[in-house]
Amino acid sequence: MEYKTYELTMLYDFFGELLTDTQREYFEYYYSDDLSLSEISELTGVSRQGVRGVLRRTEELLRGYEARTGVVRRFRELESRIDALRADAARLLELTDGEALKLAKRIYDGLDDLKG
Amino acid sequence: MEYKTYELTMLYDFFGELLTDTQREYFEYYYSDDLSLSEISELTGVSRQGVRGVLRRTEELLRGYEARTGVVRRFRELESRIDALRADAARLLELTDGEALKLAKRIYDGLDDLKG
Repeated sequence: MEYKTYELTMLYDFFGELLTDTQREYFEYYYSDDLSLSEISELTGVSRQGVRGVLRRTEELLRGYEARTGVVRRFRELESRIDALRADAARLLELTDGEALKLAKRIYDGLDDLKG
Repeated sequence: MEYKTYELTMLYDFFGELLTDTQREYFEYYYSDDLSLSEISELTGVSRQGVRGVLRRTEELLRGYEARTGVVRRFRELESRIDALRADAARLLELTDGEALKLAKRIYDGLDDLKG
């Protein structure tokens, strides 16, 4: 998946419910179902130019929500700090045994689950 | 701080920038500066009833954003899972020494920072 799509998909995951039904529908056709502008145009009876306009406006809205709330940025920062802790936990797995190893394993797995 | 205030403050932290200037101003008078409705009324020249109306609408908006995005709920779930991992890390501090103890300490502190 190219970076732009990944980014918009994360924004959509958080802010999709703040969009209109039409914006959501076109977004999913394009980004989830990977339809082309022409295919969406045929499907909806709206001109290719019109479809492109809705998608652009939707991307603007999603980016605007992120600019104002920083939600995705905050989750990403958390993820990169979790990755650093997980590297420490991986090293702990090599250094411990018995009950300590069990705890280290639970932390190692638990950190991964946090990123769910 | 009572629970309702705590909850609204968390919602405001994420969604405050989606409100209008007036909504933000009244919200901060009431929830951050702890002014009474009468005090805000005096300060702004708006009736006590008017101030109450703005605050109610603002609370509704914040709760609506949360209902549609689940952002605060997702962060809270993360926090409670971080707390569980931190309890494991605390136990690890007692069971390890040397390099393993140093790693366990870094994980223990790092988990706390995640909740920042």
